[in-house]
Parts: sequence; C-alpha cells; structure tokens
Amino acid sequence: MLYFCAMEERYDYQVLQSFAIDIFLKIGCSKAHAELAAGVLISADLRGIDSHGLARLSGYVRLWETGRVHVNPEMNIIHETPSTATIDGDKGLGLVVAPYAMDVAIKKAAIAGTGWVAVQNSNHFGIAAVHAMKALKHDMIGIVMTNASALVAPTYSTERMLGTNPICVVFPAGEEPPFVADMATTTAANGKLEMLQRKNKQAPSGWIQDGDGNITHDAFALKSKGALLPLGSFPENGSYKGYALGSIVDIFTGVLSGANFGPWVPPFPAYIPMPENQPGKGIGHFFGAMRIDAFRPAEDFKHQMDRWIKRFRLATPIDASQPVLIPGDIERMMEIKRKSEGIPLLQVVINDLNDLAKKLNIPTF
Amino acid sequence: MLYFCAMEERYDYQVLQSFAIDIFLKIGCSKAHAELAAGVLISADLRGIDSHGLARLSGYVRLWETGRVHVNPEMNIIHETPSTATIDGDKGLGLVVAPYAMDVAIKKAAIAGTGWVAVQNSNHFGIAAVHAMKALKHDMIGIVMTNASALVAPTYSTERMLGTNPICVVFPAGEEPPFVADMATTTAANGKLEMLQRKNKQAPSGWIQDGDGNITHDAFALKSKGALLPLGSFPENGSYKGYALGSIVDIFTGVLSGANFGPWVPPFPAYIPMPENQPGKGIGHFFGAMRIDAFRPAEDFKHQMDRWIKRFRLATPIDASQPVLIPGDIERMMEIKRKSEGIPLLQVVINDLNDLAKKLNIPTF
Repeated sequence: MLYFCAMEERYDYQVLQSFAIDIFLKIGCSKAHAELAAGVLISADLRGIDSHGLARLSGYVRLWETGRVHVNPEMNIIHETPSTATIDGDKGLGLVVAPYAMDVAIKKAAIAGTGWVAVQNSNHFGIAAVHAMKALKHDMIGIVMTNASALVAPTYSTERMLGTNPICVVFPAGEEPPFVADMATTTAANGKLEMLQRKNKQAPSGWIQDGDGNITHDAFALKSKGALLPLGSFPENGSYKGYALGSIVDIFTGVLSGANFGPWVPPFPAYIPMPENQPGKGIGHFFGAMRIDAFRPAEDFKHQMDRWIKRFRLATPIDASQPVLIPGDIERMMEIKRKSEGIPLLQVVINDLNDLAKKLNIPTF
Repeated sequence: MLYFCAMEERYDYQVLQSFAIDIFLKIGCSKAHAELAAGVLISADLRGIDSHGLARLSGYVRLWETGRVHVNPEMNIIHETPSTATIDGDKGLGLVVAPYAMDVAIKKAAIAGTGWVAVQNSNHFGIAAVHAMKALKHDMIGIVMTNASALVAPTYSTERMLGTNPICVVFPAGEEPPFVADMATTTAANGKLEMLQRKNKQAPSGWIQDGDGNITHDAFALKSKGALLPLGSFPENGSYKGYALGSIVDIFTGVLSGANFGPWVPPFPAYIPMPENQPGKGIGHFFGAMRIDAFRPAEDFKHQMDRWIKRFRLATPIDASQPVLIPGDIERMMEIKRKSEGIPLLQVVINDLNDLAKKLNIPTF
C-alpha cells in the first residue's frame, strides 16, 4: 500500500478517478453509481473547483457512515406533467441523483420542448456545471441550481439563512466553445474563503461580515457566527439582489421540490446536528433542459452564439493584457491543462485521502 | 385645456391612466391596446419605478413618430412546441407585446406544465414585474427578462456591451403577499443614476466607471463614454457574475428569440441612430410560466412559501429599526400608498407631458 506524501503534488486524473471509484464501491455503491459519482467529483478537480472535488470525498463517506446518505437509493418520479417532474432522491448521493434528474429533464425536453425537474431528499451534488453541460450534446440549454446549508446572511441581517445557492446556465455554440456560467449567488464562494484560511490571508472587503453584521477582513469570521455576503456585498451596491437570487434558488430547489429550505437545509459535515423541525426532505435541486429548436433552428442559434461570443471577446479591454472573458473560459482552459499536467492536491487533502484509504482498507495510488 | 404646473405634485393614478390612454388612442392604438399599455406604465409609477412610468410616455410616442414602433402590430407565433413559442412582435409597443406573450406562456403552462416564450421584434416593455405577476392568479411561477440597449461594460472592458437586462421571478404565497424579485443585473439601474443626476449628487463607488474603466463618482459619466457596472461592481467582489447574469438575459431574450443582442440592441431614445449590421429584429424578451401543481399541490407550496417568508422576516436584524425585507415588499407598500395618496410627478416630467398633450392636441387633467 502506497500513501500520498507530497506537500502539493500533481496526480493523473484517471488515477484519482479510479481511487474514488474504489472508495464508492467499498461503501456499497453499484459499479455504475461509483463511476458516475467519481466522474462528477473529478470533473470539479479538473475544472479547478478544488473545494468540490476529491477534497470532499471523505465528507461523503462520513455522511454514509451516519446514515444520512443511502448508497443504493430508489430514485422515483413522484409527480409529473409533460414538461415537469418532481423526484425523490431517497437520500442518495447528489453525485448520482443529479445526473439521473438531469436525464429526466432532457428526456422531457425532447418531447415537450423543455423539461424541468425539482428534486427533494438529495445530498450535495458536486459542481452544477457538470450536470448542466449534459444538455449541450443534445443542442439544449442546461439550467441547474441547488440549495445548501445556511452560511449567508440576507441584507440587513446577522443570521445565516441561505446557502451559497449556485445558479448554472449553459448555452451551446457552434465553432466557439459553449457558454458556461456557474456561480454561487454570494460575492465569493465558500471554497475561496477556505483557500484564504489555508494561506492565512485576509478576505477582501465585502466577502464576509462578523457576528454583529460588520464587514470584516477576517477569513475565519465564518467560524465565529459571521456570514458570507450575498452578491453585491453592500446594500448600496445591490446586495439585496444577491439575496433575492439566493432566495430564488432556495425556493425553486427547496420549496417547490418539497426539500428543506432556508436555515433548515442539512449541513454537509456529518458531525453537525440536523436542524430541528425541518419542513422538507434533504437538500433540494432544480434542473432544466430547453431544446434550442423549440425556439429556432439549432444551427441558426449556434451561429448567432458564435457571433455573440466573438463580439464579446473583442470588447475593448481596460488593460490589453486582460481581455474580456466568456463565462466558462477559465474552467475550460484549466481542464485542458489538468488533463495533461495532472491535478494538484494540497497536503491536507492528501492526508485526508490517505486516512480514508486506511479506514476503508483501499490501496492508494 | 389645463396644463400641469406644480414643482412636484401628486396626481390620482386613474386620472394619469386616462391621460395615457388618450395619448395611445391618439397615435392610433386600439382601445384594448391603449388601455393595456397605459395600465403597464401606470403600474410602474404606482410601484415606485418612476423611470419606467409616465416619464417614458413621450419616448414611446417619438419611437412611433420615427416608425420604429407599430401601433397596430400583427403579433404572430412563428415557432412552437407544447411548452414553447417564439413570437414576432411586429415592432409593437413592448407594453402590448409583453402581455400577449406572457398570456401565451400561461396557456402553454396550463397544458404542458410550463410555458416559455421568446420574443423578437419588440420594444421597451415597461417594468418586468407587472408582466410576471400575471402568472400569480393562476398559481404559477412567473419569469420575465428583457434586453435593452448597451450601457453596461463587461468585467475588464471599457465598452458598453449589455443593457441593464433585468430578471424578474415571482412566486405565489398563501396568506403572505407574493415573492416578487425584479432586478437589473447591474449594481444600480439606470433610473437610479438619473435620479442622482437630477439632484446633482455623486454616485456611490461601484455603480459606474469612466471611459477609461476607472471607478468614478460622477453621475454624469455615462454621458461621456462611461458605463454602468455589472452587479458585484468590482472583479474581486464578483462583478464577473453580474456580467454573466446580464449575458444570460441577453442570450435568452436576444439570441434565442432572433432579436438583436449585445451592442446591437436598438436604443430607446428615437434620436439615437440604430446600430449598424444588426443580427436580429428589434428588442428581445423572454417569458416563463410554471404551474406550481406541475411539481406539487399548489396549496402545499403556498403553505411552505408562507413559512419561508415568515422565517425570513424574523431573521435577526443588524439594526432593529431595519428588519429583513422580502423581495417585492417595498414596491407593494409603495403601490398601496400611491393608490391612496396619488403619484408624485417631477416638474420635468410634468413639462414633458404638457408638451406631449399640446403636440397631440389632447386635454391634460
């Protein structure tokens, strides 16, 4: 058995993926589910969203240990119309429930023009973009949202009421790569704050507030009753819009699906007790797929998307060394780089994976 | 004939609405269209969005004078599936095209569960909320977006590439009033900047940049090659998310519908020449209606929405004198107040309406 040992070393993504598959198999996932879940996790690492990749693997295992995750969920459509469905994820890994639900949305769209799926009783699903991008090869628009446990204070409040509640929207293009916007509805995602904590750096103004609602630069303020701030940061800079966006995601994913919402959303860390008096089941997601040719011929749209993308790339830059980017550019380039150069893992993640391998008696790589 | 003359006086909304109806009739609208258009405009004034109400009436008339607006449009569905439609607005007033398109979305939703309508060849439609809220009485979620002429610079750019491109999402509730979020995807809507200009006040940091891309407090910077900033204001505060949101709206409304997009969207002021080499027709909108009971029983949802709203109202405030608000609270309270106390009009608007009345030989009120 070989343990990880570097301070920060790069690993071949396929090697890491095999390791993750072994872990999921060991806790009882089917082969198909283990491969699916590992693929979603590795996609996050490949795209540079390190906080949502292998760094979370041990967290999923702990949720399974406490019984909050079922490894062989019976996912069911509990309500439907031609263009909609509501799915009970049966406490499955979000990494497995989300691809299933997105496929239902795509199938609905193939027949009705669009497909919309609300999911209750699920768990953390990794990054939204990997699910939404399933729509692209069908010449469909993909839309994905999820709620998450409360870390964000509404404008004018000190209380954590919303998760970082991401919205992802992807559009296919022709010659150009697709438009892929995947964003937390906060000024900064929690993963960015964790990076500052690891490096002992200060947070920029407008990312977080302390327990009294004062803006703070202390990247650890979240550990002492502080809160993340909605996109906009300050009321005079439109933070009430970020609060509204996070709320919209919470209502689509939580209230519409029958999942939990607001301060009742289950925490990801298994050691944190579940909130009391929960109004729904598990975490909630929402998926949409829209056939382009339900509105106009797909080739026309993709041709115009190319024009849109090319024109925006040519928008006059403030500084010639920093051209205007199209949403998805950074992650796509990162994926190319990491597929060839490997995925860098921090020592803390390596230690965590070593511990996990030891606990489950799995060889590392 | 009695002319307006006060510095800022309050007027009964029904009197103003009659005046607007007379104007629309005079330029050739049908009675039904004149009443519809006037109702949409007055809704903006009632809800406190003064920039989108009667203040724009003379602007619509000027668009008609230059032939950019048809007062008797033949609005047609040019493409459809069970849950979608694309509509050509035939250069109609957006104030008339939008209600028609939202009704198509609602009818589609009644049958297919959801309805989605992309609109090309339209004009400015007033405020999004008034169209989205049509869904509420059907126990549907309402979604409305529009693009607009370019005033907003993408992150890292000095060039105006996007409109203020609002997103509106409304959810019905039970005992509580509905959740109504209607927001420009910029830090501040252009109407707020116009208010600062009128009062000769400085703009807060993060609302606008000058022609070189520097943050400025000069509320007039937009008149000298400056630009509005996307929600988030600064790159380190997530302005690239506001840019992505504005882009998503532009693609749904402009690219998907076959309307213009980006820097090619027609300007509202009739004296500004049309952009050259336009890729589409007119301004674009996008409408969605989703039956609540396509996902879960409407009564269950509305009961849970009440719980959501009540819990968020009780979120611990930073300052007890400023409780947490629910999106739509301010506008709803304003509407109650203005319905009883009247709508205040600035002298500049009063002068403009007097001139319009004189030009069209219409009595004022």
